[in-house]
Amino acid sequence: MSRQAAVKDAAVKDAGTAVVSERDMANAIRALAMDAVQKANSGHPGMPMGMADAATVLFDRFIKLDPSKPDWPDRDRFVLSAGHGSMLQYALHYLIGYDDMPIEQLMRFRQLGSRTAGHPEYGHAKGIETTTGPLGQGISTAVGMALAERMMATRFGADLVDHYTYVIAGDGCLQEGISHEAIDLAGHLRLNRLIVLWDDNAISIDGPTTLSTSTDQLARFAAAGWSVTRVDGHDMEAVADAIEKARRSDKPSLIACKTVIGKGAPNLGGSEKTHGAPLGEAEIAATRENIGWPYKPFEVPPDILVAWRDIAERGRVDRLAWEKRLAASPQRQSFEAAIAGRLPDGVFDALAAFRKAHIEAATKVATRKASEMALGVINEATDLTIGGSADLTHSNLTITKGMERILPGDYAGDYVHYGIREHGMAAAMNGIALHGGFVPYGGTFLCFADYARGAMRLSALMGQRVIYVMTHDSIGLGEDGPTHQPIEHLAMLRATPNLNVFRPADIIETAECWELALQERDRPSVLVLSRQNLPMLRQAYTVDNLSARGAYVLREPAGRRDVTLIATGSEVEIAVSAAEKLKTEHGLAAAVVSMPCWELFEEQDSAYRAKVLGSAPRVAVEAAARLGWDRWIGDNGAFIGMTGFGASAPAPDLYRHFGITPEAVVDAALQLTGKE
Amino acid sequence: MSRQAAVKDAAVKDAGTAVVSERDMANAIRALAMDAVQKANSGHPGMPMGMADAATVLFDRFIKLDPSKPDWPDRDRFVLSAGHGSMLQYALHYLIGYDDMPIEQLMRFRQLGSRTAGHPEYGHAKGIETTTGPLGQGISTAVGMALAERMMATRFGADLVDHYTYVIAGDGCLQEGISHEAIDLAGHLRLNRLIVLWDDNAISIDGPTTLSTSTDQLARFAAAGWSVTRVDGHDMEAVADAIEKARRSDKPSLIACKTVIGKGAPNLGGSEKTHGAPLGEAEIAATRENIGWPYKPFEVPPDILVAWRDIAERGRVDRLAWEKRLAASPQRQSFEAAIAGRLPDGVFDALAAFRKAHIEAATKVATRKASEMALGVINEATDLTIGGSADLTHSNLTITKGMERILPGDYAGDYVHYGIREHGMAAAMNGIALHGGFVPYGGTFLCFADYARGAMRLSALMGQRVIYVMTHDSIGLGEDGPTHQPIEHLAMLRATPNLNVFRPADIIETAECWELALQERDRPSVLVLSRQNLPMLRQAYTVDNLSARGAYVLREPAGRRDVTLIATGSEVEIAVSAAEKLKTEHGLAAAVVSMPCWELFEEQDSAYRAKVLGSAPRVAVEAAARLGWDRWIGDNGAFIGMTGFGASAPAPDLYRHFGITPEAVVDAALQLTGKE
Repeated sequence: MSRQAAVKDAAVKDAGTAVVSERDMANAIRALAMDAVQKANSGHPGMPMGMADAATVLFDRFIKLDPSKPDWPDRDRFVLSAGHGSMLQYALHYLIGYDDMPIEQLMRFRQLGSRTAGHPEYGHAKGIETTTGPLGQGISTAVGMALAERMMATRFGADLVDHYTYVIAGDGCLQEGISHEAIDLAGHLRLNRLIVLWDDNAISIDGPTTLSTSTDQLARFAAAGWSVTRVDGHDMEAVADAIEKARRSDKPSLIACKTVIGKGAPNLGGSEKTHGAPLGEAEIAATRENIGWPYKPFEVPPDILVAWRDIAERGRVDRLAWEKRLAASPQRQSFEAAIAGRLPDGVFDALAAFRKAHIEAATKVATRKASEMALGVINEATDLTIGGSADLTHSNLTITKGMERILPGDYAGDYVHYGIREHGMAAAMNGIALHGGFVPYGGTFLCFADYARGAMRLSALMGQRVIYVMTHDSIGLGEDGPTHQPIEHLAMLRATPNLNVFRPADIIETAECWELALQERDRPSVLVLSRQNLPMLRQAYTVDNLSARGAYVLREPAGRRDVTLIATGSEVEIAVSAAEKLKTEHGLAAAVVSMPCWELFEEQDSAYRAKVLGSAPRVAVEAAARLGWDRWIGDNGAFIGMTGFGASAPAPDLYRHFGITPEAVVDAALQLTGKE
Repeated sequence: MSRQAAVKDAAVKDAGTAVVSERDMANAIRALAMDAVQKANSGHPGMPMGMADAATVLFDRFIKLDPSKPDWPDRDRFVLSAGHGSMLQYALHYLIGYDDMPIEQLMRFRQLGSRTAGHPEYGHAKGIETTTGPLGQGISTAVGMALAERMMATRFGADLVDHYTYVIAGDGCLQEGISHEAIDLAGHLRLNRLIVLWDDNAISIDGPTTLSTSTDQLARFAAAGWSVTRVDGHDMEAVADAIEKARRSDKPSLIACKTVIGKGAPNLGGSEKTHGAPLGEAEIAATRENIGWPYKPFEVPPDILVAWRDIAERGRVDRLAWEKRLAASPQRQSFEAAIAGRLPDGVFDALAAFRKAHIEAATKVATRKASEMALGVINEATDLTIGGSADLTHSNLTITKGMERILPGDYAGDYVHYGIREHGMAAAMNGIALHGGFVPYGGTFLCFADYARGAMRLSALMGQRVIYVMTHDSIGLGEDGPTHQPIEHLAMLRATPNLNVFRPADIIETAECWELALQERDRPSVLVLSRQNLPMLRQAYTVDNLSARGAYVLREPAGRRDVTLIATGSEVEIAVSAAEKLKTEHGLAAAVVSMPCWELFEEQDSAYRAKVLGSAPRVAVEAAARLGWDRWIGDNGAFIGMTGFGASAPAPDLYRHFGITPEAVVDAALQLTGKE
């Protein structure tokens, strides 16, 4: 059944015995939103009330969802970018009949343990496609979803992949910088399955948007290559026409819906007072009167509910037809493997062979180069990986032989030139991962994790397998100087929950960390890689992935340890060199611990951790801020690293200048052991 | 002398005996850039060579600078937003005669200790107005400078303040999201003294910009309220005409200069290969031939140097005239105090009185409210403060009685509605602080430090007195849920060098922290403030600012300590309550340490630190990530805080749910002291 055929009579809808209008359906959203916010005494009624009409049109006439199978791969993706209006989403979920969203959930809006969190949280309730709330993230994540849809459609055909990504965005989403990165990328790539309904209510928290913006958003989106139109967001026919046109456009579409925030509230409608606070009992009563909604709080009369649930039935029919097509498809197995995100075993076999070969060859390369080499093996063994970089392809070394660019209107490739858009790249990767079908990785300099932070945090919060390839990871990048030299970034990333931060020391650890990043299904990873060459430190091939425990003893002296040297990444070489000096020049037995991933080490049992860390005094060395290291070096430990910002000079000069040298490690060890 | 009168003959210029063209002058830039990059074997020659012509026109005909007095307040501000083209700036500085930029500095480009860092670093060399390199920061910082200029002009008149802010920006600057926030704000506020020359060379690192963008930048800027034009960036008359028109516009102006990257290089010109690598000896020789530059590396013939140095002489004449006007001005003293950033003593007297009054009243308020109250006192006592918020004015509580909005075209106010633009706000505040005349502070939620990170790091790197008011600082914000609840943000900020992070526990500490933030001239501050009410914890007024040492003993038991409880902000109340329970229920003597600022505590001598921390076991409590706390609790300490992301619920429920309670602190203390 085509979408067109599903479009219903605008004015009335036969729902058994009663005549239910779409306005009635929209008023159900309004009432549920204001009631739930009132009961919670917290929340944002203005946006759901303002966008109730447009959302009703979108859902009633267009959207393709099956609440009984919420993860059906060919469903439309609905993204509430203006996440504070979460009651719009929860009301919709209740109305169309998600079984985990009974009315009781709406009554427990914003309460501990409910599915109805303050902002839509991915994983809390079925049908929430992405976590939103930090403004601009939803629209930017949707770009990744819309791109993934086109890439999957190219690979598997329209029979299996043929859906839209719909976004409701607010003024805040469009003011945030990330929206610029997102809409430019979407316009460039001509992601015509992306349709954004902008809740153009001209109100933000401080008051009218004229307090802070004069931008002509339609002109702005048009400049970025979008189809644009403006409609009265309360004129349901106009909204429907605009969505129809958008669905036929060869570009992404912006539909500016002129709305009244808190529409329906007779005294507060149109005011920022409806944005983020309950309307109050009196205004709620007046609103009921005003919109003709004589029902009790949380009550939706059966005929209106039936009208809503028709949408689910339409979706179920579509889904069943799709399942027949899938069952008959020769591509079924590969489609299902892609959607499940299952990497072929060949990837891991190839990585093991890679490690073995390079141990033997004692390959000495920068870990960014090692990453490129490992990626060559990975990308050869799977077509699930989608690479990219924020305009640093040949610095991050993220493209491998045979990869093809994704072009405007041509999505057969597997490499995205994300442009100078770290934040947009991270959000798009979230969208690609959430959509399913691919494993995205993308590169930038570690320092520009700063720019990507907002979306990286959401990768972690949503537990998505997004892999960040962050090169030029310390003062070791040299001449570009302090603006490009990360200092606090490792601490920032390590402090972030549910994020694995890998800083491998050589080509072997790099391959191991790639393996771990690919195997981790519910957590993003950051690969922190050197610009400069690093020697091979591992001495023998092991079947086990030694990085998997987060830290391990790389060099254990014969007999007891006098001191333990702990390091990560490019500084492991320094620790090894210091250990040799301690032995030959001072007769001290130093163990060297390589600690490529703090998070995984923290997850080990205490016996393993104690064995690795040892009871001898400890010296840690990392060309970064100390913050966090005291946990590993203990009360009597020493840390060799950075105490301030970096500088511009060749890397070897900087290591000497900042005292991050084998000699400094030796001195610290001598002091700790009383041998100085 | 008007700028117009200073415009010189375009084609030729009489410089003593020789006839020097502006093209010759521009070729001096080209040669110096390619020679310095070649000698350093590192750097970016393409941009300086491409923009040499436009920059020469800007400097030769328009710019108002006096190298002999580089900090002259009424100078034009020149911002090289495309900071990788730093050799353009260093060449200009050498050519017009900054005395700290002799040719030897250019020969030591990108070497340790030289002023010629890889990217322009504020404070490294005279005349560098801001640090650039992270793309988009320069243009966004310039918005703050242009706003400060208009605010100062409104306060002191055109006799004293009448200058332009010129920016050279690249494709990367315009692709970064922050540029959206910046240009929208500038367009809205009609900052017509802001003139951006876009190096429209259509090349980025990965190759042609068509790899990743199709945006019509002129249409985009026009949509944001800018004057826009496009010229051949090598046609000096066209560039001059465009700058002339821009100077007369009532809007900020974008001049797209179509250029050839690496212009002059016969084989590599126009290619991304000139972007970030030396041209090589052969191509440099061919370029010399091609542009008619027969001189040796780093040699600029005297006549061309004289032509350049005329610019400085013009500036000196302007500066001397300005100094006469200042000397005669009745506003001289207040102008000089503003430019020097000297706050009146009254500010600090009033804050002391404020502390005394509220100790007596035992005021119990959220620290965000305490901040508002302290700001009321501060803003009453000085007109140097410029407030603002990223659309959370009444949540951050950043506006105080009598403050007036800054409006488009009317800069008499002292409060900026920055819009939903955290990153743009931070960069604009950097610009306001760098310009001089004001002390900017701006608010957002602590969680959205993520969005502002890039510019906050530059506040720290440049050592600017920018004050971030970051409220809703933990799970204590309640229902908005995990996307709004900071976890890792304190660690992220504390790991950042040269940044003071204040998390006050009550209204008294809040006033103290404001005092410290205002007194700190060379470091930005972040005030981390609670949404929820907090009791008064301080028991007596002290003349000394107890927060100034970073941490202090808030409660010392009589006799010896059994345990030390350490906390910050809203958790100090929990520690105090736990100490009371330990005493009354378990007979244990617990000291409570309040630690509002780790950075200041780290700077204390070890005796003070040892006294505060004590030798008893320690329990720390903070509703945030543990990372970093091991330094203070030691090997045998305990930490009560967050181990993952937050949740959506009322704040008291969340504190209980995550086990951040007096009971949990008591249990930890009992365990550590063996009394459980």
